[in-house]
Amino acid sequence: MNVLIVHAHPEPQSFTAALRDLAVETLRGQGHQVQVSDLYAMNWNPVASADDFAARENPDYLVYALEQREGAKNQSIAADIQQELDKLLWADLLILNFPIYWFSAPAILKGWIDRVLVSGICYGGKRFYDQGGLRGKQALVSLTLGGREHMFGEGAIHGPLEDMLRPILRGTLAYVGMEVLPPFVAWHVPYISAEAREDFLRAYQARLETLGQDQPLQFPRLEQFDDRLYPLNRNA
Amino acid sequence: MNVLIVHAHPEPQSFTAALRDLAVETLRGQGHQVQVSDLYAMNWNPVASADDFAARENPDYLVYALEQREGAKNQSIAADIQQELDKLLWADLLILNFPIYWFSAPAILKGWIDRVLVSGICYGGKRFYDQGGLRGKQALVSLTLGGREHMFGEGAIHGPLEDMLRPILRGTLAYVGMEVLPPFVAWHVPYISAEAREDFLRAYQARLETLGQDQPLQFPRLEQFDDRLYPLNRNA
Repeated sequence: MNVLIVHAHPEPQSFTAALRDLAVETLRGQGHQVQVSDLYAMNWNPVASADDFAARENPDYLVYALEQREGAKNQSIAADIQQELDKLLWADLLILNFPIYWFSAPAILKGWIDRVLVSGICYGGKRFYDQGGLRGKQALVSLTLGGREHMFGEGAIHGPLEDMLRPILRGTLAYVGMEVLPPFVAWHVPYISAEAREDFLRAYQARLETLGQDQPLQFPRLEQFDDRLYPLNRNA
Repeated sequence: MNVLIVHAHPEPQSFTAALRDLAVETLRGQGHQVQVSDLYAMNWNPVASADDFAARENPDYLVYALEQREGAKNQSIAADIQQELDKLLWADLLILNFPIYWFSAPAILKGWIDRVLVSGICYGGKRFYDQGGLRGKQALVSLTLGGREHMFGEGAIHGPLEDMLRPILRGTLAYVGMEVLPPFVAWHVPYISAEAREDFLRAYQARLETLGQDQPLQFPRLEQFDDRLYPLNRNA
């Protein structure tokens, strides 16, 4: 299996970086090929802009997704994007490894999503959800956060974590057709003991060693909707 | 009323920019003070990093929120952040004006949130949700998207738009204590006629002229939870 880990944390010694290193070691130990995109170390540019296209379909008015389609077709997309896109297309499993910032991804990782998941390849027209351009691949989100576990879930103060992660899990990873595995979450990380961190590392290793047994999350399928994307069997 | 509009679109002639201009004109016409942060025009840096702090509480290990608290206290936070923070603290109403990228904010705007909503001022400890540091202020999200309205809602292919916007509406704006007004949404924008765009502009103007009549969205209140943030009256 080919694995791409996209890592986004500003502190190289962070626990989030330890999760990344453990994933590299564990997955290589199982015989998988692993590449890492360490966005802070790469000084990744997260800002989608006109500069992303060497040639423009419409130089007078930027429609970003339209230029992505042309750029991907003509290989005229910026080199930093093309490199990441090549890694993504190579991968069978994508791991997004990051600390929660405002119940979502840090901007540097959001900008990897904005720029690398190009229209025309990853999605476009009726190619989304189970028909998405990256179907056949798997995705795992591994994340750290400051909150305690009891602050998430039904009736808890922040509600279910999966609901906060909906734009990533459903709106991004499932949207481009990937099979999305349940997230791995390390809770309350800035405040816990070294032993508690070791427990999370052991749990993550065990999880990585048994990924094949994971039940992916369930999302809409296009066959449940008509040609105009109205739901079929609305009252069934 | 003081109004800060944070605008994030890579195309200066975009319809999203027309929404921004209309808001400036309409709100000034009503006698309000308006400032605009045009993130693309400002070449805003969205990447939270160690460079954001002139002096470090802990130079050997970056805990971003901790350094924010110290930096805000000592006024040693980066000048570009301090300028935006000053605008935010001046404002009675914050408008986030952007096109939906991956069911959430473009990275450049996510990085405004990551860097400007500093710990110790906007939130911290038990100061969040209705006790957040920005309580007393209002927030409005005005956005454009490619999808059609019938693709959102209960039973629709993408589910309710508010669920996709949860990390912004609840996890960010409500979290820092702002009163969050229902979003203004312009649907299917890249594909609609000039007349349909005019209709959206008229609807937005009417909305802006009657903001005082809006019913804010409802979110958790800390009084519903105990000292450890477990829910009270779990079975009530």
